[in-house]
Amino acid sequence: MSEHTKCNKQTSCEKCHCSGCLLHQAEEPKLGEECGVFGMYDMEGRDVASTIYYGLFSLQHRGQESCGIAVSRTDGPPRNSSSVKGMGLVNEVFNAENLGKMKGDIGVGHVRYSTAGASIAENTQPLVLNYIKGTLSLAHNGNLVNALELRRELELSGAIFQTSIDSEVIAYLIARERLKVGKVEEAVKEAMKKIKGAYSLVVASPRKLIGARDPFGFRPLCIGKRDGAYMLSSESCALDTVGAEFIRDVEPGEIVTITPEGITSDKSLMTQNHAKCIFEYIYFARPDSYIDGISVHSSRIIAGRILAQTHPVDADIVVGVPESGNAAAMGFALESGIPYGTAFVKNSYVGRTFIKPKQSARESSVMVKLNVLREIVRGKRVVMVDDSIVRGTTSARIVKMLKDAGASEVHVRISSPPFKYPCYFGTDVPSSDQLPAFSHTVEQIAEMIGADSLGYLDLNRLSELIDGDQGYCNACFSGNYPVDPPQEDIRGDYDK
Amino acid sequence: MSEHTKCNKQTSCEKCHCSGCLLHQAEEPKLGEECGVFGMYDMEGRDVASTIYYGLFSLQHRGQESCGIAVSRTDGPPRNSSSVKGMGLVNEVFNAENLGKMKGDIGVGHVRYSTAGASIAENTQPLVLNYIKGTLSLAHNGNLVNALELRRELELSGAIFQTSIDSEVIAYLIARERLKVGKVEEAVKEAMKKIKGAYSLVVASPRKLIGARDPFGFRPLCIGKRDGAYMLSSESCALDTVGAEFIRDVEPGEIVTITPEGITSDKSLMTQNHAKCIFEYIYFARPDSYIDGISVHSSRIIAGRILAQTHPVDADIVVGVPESGNAAAMGFALESGIPYGTAFVKNSYVGRTFIKPKQSARESSVMVKLNVLREIVRGKRVVMVDDSIVRGTTSARIVKMLKDAGASEVHVRISSPPFKYPCYFGTDVPSSDQLPAFSHTVEQIAEMIGADSLGYLDLNRLSELIDGDQGYCNACFSGNYPVDPPQEDIRGDYDK
Amino acid sequence: MSEHTKCNKQTSCEKCHCSGCLLHQAEEPKLGEECGVFGMYDMEGRDVASTIYYGLFSLQHRGQESCGIAVSRTDGPPRNSSSVKGMGLVNEVFNAENLGKMKGDIGVGHVRYSTAGASIAENTQPLVLNYIKGTLSLAHNGNLVNALELRRELELSGAIFQTSIDSEVIAYLIARERLKVGKVEEAVKEAMKKIKGAYSLVVASPRKLIGARDPFGFRPLCIGKRDGAYMLSSESCALDTVGAEFIRDVEPGEIVTITPEGITSDKSLMTQNHAKCIFEYIYFARPDSYIDGISVHSSRIIAGRILAQTHPVDADIVVGVPESGNAAAMGFALESGIPYGTAFVKNSYVGRTFIKPKQSARESSVMVKLNVLREIVRGKRVVMVDDSIVRGTTSARIVKMLKDAGASEVHVRISSPPFKYPCYFGTDVPSSDQLPAFSHTVEQIAEMIGADSLGYLDLNRLSELIDGDQGYCNACFSGNYPVDPPQEDIRGDYDK
Amino acid sequence: MSEHTKCNKQTSCEKCHCSGCLLHQAEEPKLGEECGVFGMYDMEGRDVASTIYYGLFSLQHRGQESCGIAVSRTDGPPRNSSSVKGMGLVNEVFNAENLGKMKGDIGVGHVRYSTAGASIAENTQPLVLNYIKGTLSLAHNGNLVNALELRRELELSGAIFQTSIDSEVIAYLIARERLKVGKVEEAVKEAMKKIKGAYSLVVASPRKLIGARDPFGFRPLCIGKRDGAYMLSSESCALDTVGAEFIRDVEPGEIVTITPEGITSDKSLMTQNHAKCIFEYIYFARPDSYIDGISVHSSRIIAGRILAQTHPVDADIVVGVPESGNAAAMGFALESGIPYGTAFVKNSYVGRTFIKPKQSARESSVMVKLNVLREIVRGKRVVMVDDSIVRGTTSARIVKMLKDAGASEVHVRISSPPFKYPCYFGTDVPSSDQLPAFSHTVEQIAEMIGADSLGYLDLNRLSELIDGDQGYCNACFSGNYPVDPPQEDIRGDYDK
Repeated sequence: MSEHTKCNKQTSCEKCHCSGCLLHQAEEPKLGEECGVFGMYDMEGRDVASTIYYGLFSLQHRGQESCGIAVSRTDGPPRNSSSVKGMGLVNEVFNAENLGKMKGDIGVGHVRYSTAGASIAENTQPLVLNYIKGTLSLAHNGNLVNALELRRELELSGAIFQTSIDSEVIAYLIARERLKVGKVEEAVKEAMKKIKGAYSLVVASPRKLIGARDPFGFRPLCIGKRDGAYMLSSESCALDTVGAEFIRDVEPGEIVTITPEGITSDKSLMTQNHAKCIFEYIYFARPDSYIDGISVHSSRIIAGRILAQTHPVDADIVVGVPESGNAAAMGFALESGIPYGTAFVKNSYVGRTFIKPKQSARESSVMVKLNVLREIVRGKRVVMVDDSIVRGTTSARIVKMLKDAGASEVHVRISSPPFKYPCYFGTDVPSSDQLPAFSHTVEQIAEMIGADSLGYLDLNRLSELIDGDQGYCNACFSGNYPVDPPQEDIRGDYDK
Repeated sequence: MSEHTKCNKQTSCEKCHCSGCLLHQAEEPKLGEECGVFGMYDMEGRDVASTIYYGLFSLQHRGQESCGIAVSRTDGPPRNSSSVKGMGLVNEVFNAENLGKMKGDIGVGHVRYSTAGASIAENTQPLVLNYIKGTLSLAHNGNLVNALELRRELELSGAIFQTSIDSEVIAYLIARERLKVGKVEEAVKEAMKKIKGAYSLVVASPRKLIGARDPFGFRPLCIGKRDGAYMLSSESCALDTVGAEFIRDVEPGEIVTITPEGITSDKSLMTQNHAKCIFEYIYFARPDSYIDGISVHSSRIIAGRILAQTHPVDADIVVGVPESGNAAAMGFALESGIPYGTAFVKNSYVGRTFIKPKQSARESSVMVKLNVLREIVRGKRVVMVDDSIVRGTTSARIVKMLKDAGASEVHVRISSPPFKYPCYFGTDVPSSDQLPAFSHTVEQIAEMIGADSLGYLDLNRLSELIDGDQGYCNACFSGNYPVDPPQEDIRGDYDK
Repeated sequence: MSEHTKCNKQTSCEKCHCSGCLLHQAEEPKLGEECGVFGMYDMEGRDVASTIYYGLFSLQHRGQESCGIAVSRTDGPPRNSSSVKGMGLVNEVFNAENLGKMKGDIGVGHVRYSTAGASIAENTQPLVLNYIKGTLSLAHNGNLVNALELRRELELSGAIFQTSIDSEVIAYLIARERLKVGKVEEAVKEAMKKIKGAYSLVVASPRKLIGARDPFGFRPLCIGKRDGAYMLSSESCALDTVGAEFIRDVEPGEIVTITPEGITSDKSLMTQNHAKCIFEYIYFARPDSYIDGISVHSSRIIAGRILAQTHPVDADIVVGVPESGNAAAMGFALESGIPYGTAFVKNSYVGRTFIKPKQSARESSVMVKLNVLREIVRGKRVVMVDDSIVRGTTSARIVKMLKDAGASEVHVRISSPPFKYPCYFGTDVPSSDQLPAFSHTVEQIAEMIGADSLGYLDLNRLSELIDGDQGYCNACFSGNYPVDPPQEDIRGDYDK
Repeated sequence: MSEHTKCNKQTSCEKCHCSGCLLHQAEEPKLGEECGVFGMYDMEGRDVASTIYYGLFSLQHRGQESCGIAVSRTDGPPRNSSSVKGMGLVNEVFNAENLGKMKGDIGVGHVRYSTAGASIAENTQPLVLNYIKGTLSLAHNGNLVNALELRRELELSGAIFQTSIDSEVIAYLIARERLKVGKVEEAVKEAMKKIKGAYSLVVASPRKLIGARDPFGFRPLCIGKRDGAYMLSSESCALDTVGAEFIRDVEPGEIVTITPEGITSDKSLMTQNHAKCIFEYIYFARPDSYIDGISVHSSRIIAGRILAQTHPVDADIVVGVPESGNAAAMGFALESGIPYGTAFVKNSYVGRTFIKPKQSARESSVMVKLNVLREIVRGKRVVMVDDSIVRGTTSARIVKMLKDAGASEVHVRISSPPFKYPCYFGTDVPSSDQLPAFSHTVEQIAEMIGADSLGYLDLNRLSELIDGDQGYCNACFSGNYPVDPPQEDIRGDYDK
């Protein structure tokens, strides 16, 4: 503590992340989203593009960088397809005109998340390609750990790559395996034997819609039905939006093949060794989704209840940091008996394109996005619940806003364990040296963010969020990776 | 009732608005926003455009059609100004480049709401004009009832009009009066003697920033301060965002003049006959704003409490329709003891530009925007609190979503009285024949929207929302207009 | 000469403009275009917007900064109109959609030229306004010399100005006069009595299309007819494009009023004192236009012939600098007997939006726009004919290109007299201190641009271009202004 | 002839193309351009993107659909590159910002022509790909006749295709051959052994710039030099624009490899069997270019001279249809002694984006683009020279314009033989049944277009345009294809 007190007076302290400085540091790094996929096959021949558009709209929270839809007609020649892809949000890329032109009763869609390096048009999904059997469209959520080794192998046999996305590697493998096996779904299976890591795939071949999930089940994928049409979606909320019935989740390692004859399932790659991403429940997924049978909203309520049990505090009100902190705050309130309240107003117009002109010292992004309801917190001891702390900059600013508004105490409760290790399976998080929780005690972090107390969710109670299921991945908290991370980071060599 | 039961089976019933049909009708007409104004004068000569931009960002909820900023330098020649105006949201119209080019230590900004006819570039505000004394920039929130008569009079003396906004009339009057009086604020006062209706004005003259509010105080306006700069803003939330201190509200009928010498106030037009728009509290304003000393959020909590007192019901959970219904729902829960819950997930990416391609029967706009958290409402008796019912289409769809999700009963509570009469003071509402509450009983409307019961806020308890103040306007509920509406609607003749 | 030789070795010589430096100076200032106007009234009620669009297309050379069209229906209420205006070329601002929405059988269009200060959206024409008698649309080509005095007078009676264009002044005057006189064309006449300078006007009132030309006739205006429709156009080439018959020129000082009853003419302001802009023939107008009975193309041929008579030279080939130098080159060739040839290829894709990234020393704008046909000039004595020299930068570069391509001699002939004085009647030229011809001899300029000889058109033979008519303005060459220039330049005070 | 006279009275005669109807038919199909390529390697490490941009500007006439530039640093890792590609003109796709971001001392650029089907973003060039040896950028002008067979073969070995352009096939072959041979230029040679048809290639490997031309030499390619940099360009005019020295043409079948060590040449694929496209001289290329030692402008002058010899006529004036007819018209005038004149004014603002709103019967595209100088042709017997007739619609309209302007006779002379057969080597021409010359006599076509006489260039004198060289392709006139056309049109099967 003493060393940080000192630091408070320094003008710059990138190194120790103490509270005095966090307020003046650059913006919080954004916790990466992942991606979202949506596929559809209408057995009665109706166009699917507009329903895929609505589906992607409900998956937009999984990726705001770029999006795309590719469709084809199952009664057309094997090489027919039309696609629209672009940088931006679903309602920026698509319009009535381009949707109306996309004719096809089978198709896939994709929303992509934004990272620095690869935010280029070439990397937009779905990948649409021609191979010996016709056109294949492929959308992919996740991250392979052996993509670069596979690229190297493929290049050694003469392959060329026009993007830097894993989907292109997967597509190559499928195309090559298809020459040896009789069905595209078998080619998908053979490809899956070669790829390692996290992936949920939706593939449209000329006559089949295929969904597959890696054997660990890192990323979700589920099946829906409406009238004579089947859908595959990253999350069930998208099925609700298009008025479809939720059928079931695709199981980890399962390959489902949808044709007019119905759904067939290949379970031969399934194992009992699961590693579902727990952060889907805590942060990524929409609360109205059900993943592997668990309500995301309910799991957040439970997280809040556990926090109240493990890190109780005398307080007057429990508030959530919108939006994702609200459910856990409600759980904390229900468990503790402390009243739940709304302390923040969020400016819903602050979007992806929010520009920041030269700010005065008094104008921070956080203040543009959030404001405190003063009469709610004035003179109160406040429990502030949020889903995570990455670097702490934002938490520090919000705590300060509450105190400036008159809160007498601010007790921060985080509905996830401390974030310490990078993720290799699709979440874009900073490296450990950027994560204060890796090198600081909880008390130090509390001081940094100016909180009167700080409590994280206990790592060993995480499974309670998903009804005791032990088949989940908590590597970002524990460092226990279910699959070995890439041995060498050869991205520099391969990336465009 | 009996006649509506019959109607349920009809395929089309635009006339009686019964519940069976509402689900298949066109989208709900949007309750108009108004406008927002923000002015700033930095006595230390710093550029104000970027702070005005941040301020407008926090007033965006008051108007999403178009926006603009005009600034000038008080140490420049009398005719210097630069402005940027355009159709669209604040972050669509402005960028670092055009903000950086706007040099000026005094300026005004405006966000405009969207109505059908006049949504054209010419009508964008602020109005920037040259008159005998130099450049004047003017931003205006409200609606005059005698604008057309004034136009006719002005035209009869040779005036020409290039827009169809009231601001141009006001600007003409100020310019003419300025020839007779010694100061621009006196010209504003003389102009105010001629105009009737609702207006909150912010005017930047070459060396002064002036704020004025009509004597009835229909629309809000307040004063803030930061370092050596003063601001005028429609709502206090914008002051919070830019880190400014709230000084006080401009009073109904008051004219404040801000110069380097300080703030002077002219109260000679003030009366005791106020008519503040109560709908600012119920719906328009941001909950974190304080208007005339009243917290908007608190007034909504009170509305919910009153509903619980006047329309109690046995139920298991109280939920709000986001966002504006949440606070009243919380008040209802607090008063009734029934637990508060979150039943809806809102898709925050559905913006102004949401396009609706050909929808299947199963895809409605409401379903794209909202989804129900099934486990929260399943098997429950639900109290659903919303701020208003205009035509009822949306309410009917949301009630149906709750029931489809398993709610056993849905009791709708509305935190405003029934909407029956048009507003002539800046709110864009349908005419009475489009408002079911004008011609139907509460029971009939309950049936139309499929609710098990329906309760509105009592008209005679409205003043409790604002601490018993009787100086408010409730004409849209009661038909008692504080100012005579325009005698003839001569807009057809005059409008472009 | 000796002093310039010295200068060749200086690194910077903005002052003396000697040839060594011209090659390394900034780009040539562009000789301003003016504006173009086009009006139409279809007596059979057909929409006119699309024909006005085609007309403006043929007047595009008169202004590329912005353009606009306003139309209204003569059988509608007095206040009906729709307009589209924007920055950019005709085919950038208009499209099938916005043209299709403009309903009206009467209308005016405008193309505007680009100067630095006022290139803003507010100044786009036509000006569309409402006054006591309904909607008036006004398009204006020219420049008033007493606009600022009139503005001041109008402001002193309470007028406000929203643009900095002369049209707004004219519109005010018309609106005011209309209160006193019985017809809009009489109001136009009264306004014309007050304004001084250059103007060709097209005005659409609710039921009349009016054309007027200042008594000096500075700028052209003519009348066309097609089926049951009349047109007014800056140049006759636009009539050809829309398949209309050329009827006649509007005479200097004449006001023509077009109604379903036919064309009436008011000649009461006409005088014999004309001052038609001779530069329309030399440079501005399209060669296929006829202005006041003279073919523009033929006048350029004559200019070339005169050059051959007055500045003969022994040479092998005569070439024109495209496009405007070609006709005079042809005239020179015809008169001298020296063969005409094509020496330059122009890149027609270099448009208004040509961007200039960091250029190497070897890449100049001139080289991107023009290339020399080497085999045409190699070893030849070349007569190079151009229409004018402003600063000389471009001429110097082109002479150098010819010599680099192997020309043994380059004799420059200019089809206008030396440019020495600013124009106050609508042409945007640099001030005298920026014009080398003002302070240098012809020999000095020849040396500056590297020419072996240089000859200008003789001032006293200018009238031969227009068949001996003496009623033309040559102030930019002679300094003899037909109207006194503005006494004080009060633009700084009044301009936005 | 008699049957056509009859037809003149028919309202519709798509079949016989007689003159009466041509005037009312749809627009002339545009004769396709091809593509243009430009490569550059700066040995001193300076960025090349901006010079490539200038180069593409001068090749814009070869393709206006889309364009792109890809660069990389030769001192960087093998996989570094940045590229910008897009639909539109060079100055629409590129700007100072995106050019400034492209860092690299080696790069290639491309302009693409527009055909209906494949005008999609995916097909934009250059193709940028990663293969085992790093990044390869490839730009290609021409058309392979065996691309589909090669695609099929590659797919059978597991290849996937993401575009429908030939470049992707070539890239695959290079990547595969590179595994077997030691140098990328050898891989290019091996690939060239497999591909058939027309191609000029520019390839940038991590450390080498390679240019290659098919053994027939269908399309041009030449080498330039400036300071320490080498360039490859489709035409020499682009070298002039960037101030580079023309070194020499790449010879048919030659592969040149540019490295810091200099230029090496592999001539092992060269043969004596050439088939240079004669239409490059007649129409495609810019007149200031030299192709294989021949000045394009001079070849057009010669074409005009031959026309005067073979199809003489008594006339008063010779005029060219701008721009491409002007040089041949000059040649005709020089040979015949009939004076050369300018009869047409072209509207230079009619660009690619010219929109055509509902036209009245009197407004044709031709009239918007061209106008006749009446005083030049009135009462004259006119020889009108154009480069080609495709369907005849445009010719008919222009002849009519001349006659309407008063020409007493119009004798049409075409500087190419009649167009009868499709081209498989990169020119987009209609099929024979769309080409009147295939099925009609010259006299019939003369009647169709309303000409008093019509003369085409004689097929057997074509070689005179290129100094007697017999190694050219005239298949579009003669049907003698130097390479067998594709045996089956399997595009329907393969195309996207």
